[in-house]
Amino acid sequence: MSHPLYEKHKATLEAGLKAFGERSYWSAYNEMPSPKVYGEDAPAAGKQAFDALLGKQFELDQPGSNGWQGSEKSPYGSELNVQYPACDVDTLVAAAEKAMESWQALGLEGRTGVCLEMLERLNKQSFEIAHAVMQTTGQGWMMAFQAGGPHAQDRGLESVVAAHQVQMLSAPNAHWEKPQGKNPPLVMKKHFELVGKGVGVVIGCGTFPTWNTYPGLFAALATGNAVIVKPHSNSILPAAITVRTMREVLKEQGVDPNLVSLCVTSGHADTQKLVTHAGVRSVDFTGGNHFGHWLIDNCKQATVYAEMAGVNNVVIDSTDAYKAMLRNLAFTLSLYSGQMCTTPQAILVPAGGIETDEGHKSYDDVCNDLAKAVSGFLSKPEVAHAVLGAIQSGATTDRINEAAAGVHGRVILAPQKLENPEFPNAVVSTPVLVAVDAADEKAYMEERFGPISFVVKTADTAASVALSERLVRECGALTVSVYSTSRDVINAMIKATQRSKVALSINLTGGVFVNQSAAFSDYHGTGGNPGANASYTDLGFVANRFVVVQYREHA
Amino acid sequence: MSHPLYEKHKATLEAGLKAFGERSYWSAYNEMPSPKVYGEDAPAAGKQAFDALLGKQFELDQPGSNGWQGSEKSPYGSELNVQYPACDVDTLVAAAEKAMESWQALGLEGRTGVCLEMLERLNKQSFEIAHAVMQTTGQGWMMAFQAGGPHAQDRGLESVVAAHQVQMLSAPNAHWEKPQGKNPPLVMKKHFELVGKGVGVVIGCGTFPTWNTYPGLFAALATGNAVIVKPHSNSILPAAITVRTMREVLKEQGVDPNLVSLCVTSGHADTQKLVTHAGVRSVDFTGGNHFGHWLIDNCKQATVYAEMAGVNNVVIDSTDAYKAMLRNLAFTLSLYSGQMCTTPQAILVPAGGIETDEGHKSYDDVCNDLAKAVSGFLSKPEVAHAVLGAIQSGATTDRINEAAAGVHGRVILAPQKLENPEFPNAVVSTPVLVAVDAADEKAYMEERFGPISFVVKTADTAASVALSERLVRECGALTVSVYSTSRDVINAMIKATQRSKVALSINLTGGVFVNQSAAFSDYHGTGGNPGANASYTDLGFVANRFVVVQYREHA
Repeated sequence: MSHPLYEKHKATLEAGLKAFGERSYWSAYNEMPSPKVYGEDAPAAGKQAFDALLGKQFELDQPGSNGWQGSEKSPYGSELNVQYPACDVDTLVAAAEKAMESWQALGLEGRTGVCLEMLERLNKQSFEIAHAVMQTTGQGWMMAFQAGGPHAQDRGLESVVAAHQVQMLSAPNAHWEKPQGKNPPLVMKKHFELVGKGVGVVIGCGTFPTWNTYPGLFAALATGNAVIVKPHSNSILPAAITVRTMREVLKEQGVDPNLVSLCVTSGHADTQKLVTHAGVRSVDFTGGNHFGHWLIDNCKQATVYAEMAGVNNVVIDSTDAYKAMLRNLAFTLSLYSGQMCTTPQAILVPAGGIETDEGHKSYDDVCNDLAKAVSGFLSKPEVAHAVLGAIQSGATTDRINEAAAGVHGRVILAPQKLENPEFPNAVVSTPVLVAVDAADEKAYMEERFGPISFVVKTADTAASVALSERLVRECGALTVSVYSTSRDVINAMIKATQRSKVALSINLTGGVFVNQSAAFSDYHGTGGNPGANASYTDLGFVANRFVVVQYREHA
Repeated sequence: MSHPLYEKHKATLEAGLKAFGERSYWSAYNEMPSPKVYGEDAPAAGKQAFDALLGKQFELDQPGSNGWQGSEKSPYGSELNVQYPACDVDTLVAAAEKAMESWQALGLEGRTGVCLEMLERLNKQSFEIAHAVMQTTGQGWMMAFQAGGPHAQDRGLESVVAAHQVQMLSAPNAHWEKPQGKNPPLVMKKHFELVGKGVGVVIGCGTFPTWNTYPGLFAALATGNAVIVKPHSNSILPAAITVRTMREVLKEQGVDPNLVSLCVTSGHADTQKLVTHAGVRSVDFTGGNHFGHWLIDNCKQATVYAEMAGVNNVVIDSTDAYKAMLRNLAFTLSLYSGQMCTTPQAILVPAGGIETDEGHKSYDDVCNDLAKAVSGFLSKPEVAHAVLGAIQSGATTDRINEAAAGVHGRVILAPQKLENPEFPNAVVSTPVLVAVDAADEKAYMEERFGPISFVVKTADTAASVALSERLVRECGALTVSVYSTSRDVINAMIKATQRSKVALSINLTGGVFVNQSAAFSDYHGTGGNPGANASYTDLGFVANRFVVVQYREHA
């Protein structure tokens, strides 16, 4: 007997499996925050649901609760004042382990069906979650809705689909019959049970509390594991809403809700205790190198899937669409004030300049034209605020100020602080662009997270290609981009990025941007360079989260 | 254009993919050392080829060669005196990395086709390899042929099939078209390249130099990587023959043969240098806990797939086939003198005895009857030598002597040294059985590799089930077995083994033995208990050995 929720969502699963293999465009959840799609009342109801959470204790009914915590500061300056239950780590892990029994009993189809139901519920909450994402991360509204809602749900669904794909490849039962010449054959019946490896911990980041959390969360869950979500201390609310909804679905299905829980800790020691707990068998992490490497070095009992820092780069060799290239780059550098793990930091331009459809452009021309393209794009305040959002952390503001002071090199575009009329306390900054020579490696060869980019002067395009490869190998990267009218240069970049193992975008001049990756088609990270040891979502992201345990007996 | 070797072996691949999913009986390579199967001349030609290797330098034409090494001692006392090229580690790794370029250029189908050709060639060499396995490991002839030849090839093939399965799931190219309402859609073309993560090192063990080497070797190779095989210092020859044949196939195909090389080191320091080399991205290991954990702790740049020590166990609750049970266990304990990672070490019997088709048997009855079954089974010398083979290492002889001296408990079956008329210098020993109380944990709760087993007296079957689970959780295990006429007890064991993540065999009384696992049906190890962090061959064994690197551009 198949599970009712598996039957209910079977068409979604099947479409997802098809898209996952074909890598063509597919999305299960509509990215437009439109009342026509989500219902006439959805925008207002979502806002109301969000407002109702503010200034309150966020009930989750988790075990081991020993107080309330929470001190999220909105980059928009809004008052949040939400308090979350702080729970004892050992109690949470023990409850998660226990909950895995009822999850196991549901079987593959049941587990997959429940995950799909959870995603559908989260989709219906997209407006509420979007407000929570916007106010905790500083994303603009449209990005908060899309990346925080449907795109995150798509990534979660992609994990469920990948997990189902890899788990369905092996038969649950087998009849094994080995010929013995003239004697009767040896006959065995065998059963193969898919068993989750143990509790998963998912550590969220401050900028994309759902988009970077759902892949690991649903990968671990769909492969039979319990999950404890440990959100970033400044972006708890989107994770808390997510966990609460998932627990509700579990309760409805008669599964122990402690299968999914939220861990709000009072400090680093508690987090370290959690991730090194013997019962924890996987850790998904998005964040900086320091803690990422600490996890890899110290969580010996677990597999660590880590997305860390990188220096994304763009190689500009030549173009037949100069204005469109600059426009594309201007949007890319401005989007969420460069606070994306996919934003380019180093833009490599030959000292001799580049050929374009508007004639030869010197290195300085490119610097000035790019600066103008950015400031032009952001000249209308309503566009600027919608695209830039707000600066998520004080550390990013410090980095902007440092770059603006000329510490790293010649400032070719100074950052501007903007006043957001809707949120007078929001911290808003336009990007800063710095011109440096390729030899100034200290300036650009480490991640400077935020709206800080470098136009790096290289000897020539061959040097740019080599530097791009070296940046990926040594500093890591999630994205590389190239502009060239020469197929030889493009092919050289294809080879270089295949060697250094990073995704390449070629001549983006329209409505696709290097910092965007689409679930079911684009892989986010390859897992093959220092920027990330895993990929959303290849089969390696899910295949090691469960084991196959067999029994066999004479038939 | 498909690769000719892919076309040549396509039927094997397709049959393998089908069997891999269905988990039913399938074998590509015939396990009978029969002239009818392998050709009338095959046995003699294989012996001749083996003899021709003895007392010589084994040429491999590898780079960085700086002398000759080799000091294999045959457990049969035969003279081997084969010398192998010792090569500089940095040179081998650099050559392997360089060779990956031509391997990459071959594409998925080409790489898979070449791997399948290699396996076919190795299959034709089964007699030669069997002699090499027999004389270096001490296995009996039939086991050396089967486990060293066709069964090892089946496991290698299984890795190629698993690797192909996981790599073929994602399309190499995609057309991505995203609707934009009334505007023209965004259209991109995308390519997804499968790229090996880097050089793999496969560290062989002294007892199964091909069976435990081929899975990692072919998994790494079939996912686009170069492989350096580091054999056990006493079982180099089977690996050397394998590597030479694989290099020949590569040369014929115009691929740089340094894609596969042999690393014979002069000591531990060289091995440590090899496995921690920045270019090495995977390490496959079979061996003891000490070095296994060293690898996991120190090879931070690589993924380590390790099969280590364990305490396999048998729970005896009751049986309706007492004699057949004892016969099955007698064979299991005798096979290759217990020098298998799958041999049971702890046999758990209730203090109150067991119910059987021959009436109640006390704990002491079971001890005595099992001892008699073993000695009876081995009473014919020709059977004894064929099944026992010889003792592979002096450390195993020491452990046998220690157990025989009663250090661990009451000896219920003393080991016998046997004279092998064909090999007068062979070290041959029958198993030793020791009776202990469950409280004597120090005796049986660590691996005592070799023909040393314990009949452990437990309070009752419930205590046996609990102890079995604890043994797996704390000491690791590759196999667990249960004998019971009660479905409740069997179900309790099924639950216990699913929790502790170990394969279970139920009521084996015929021609299937707990220490045997069949490729394409039985998983060897689960990867979920301390005995092994990987499994032959689930998709997790192959899915993390490569990455997907994409590029995208406007269509």
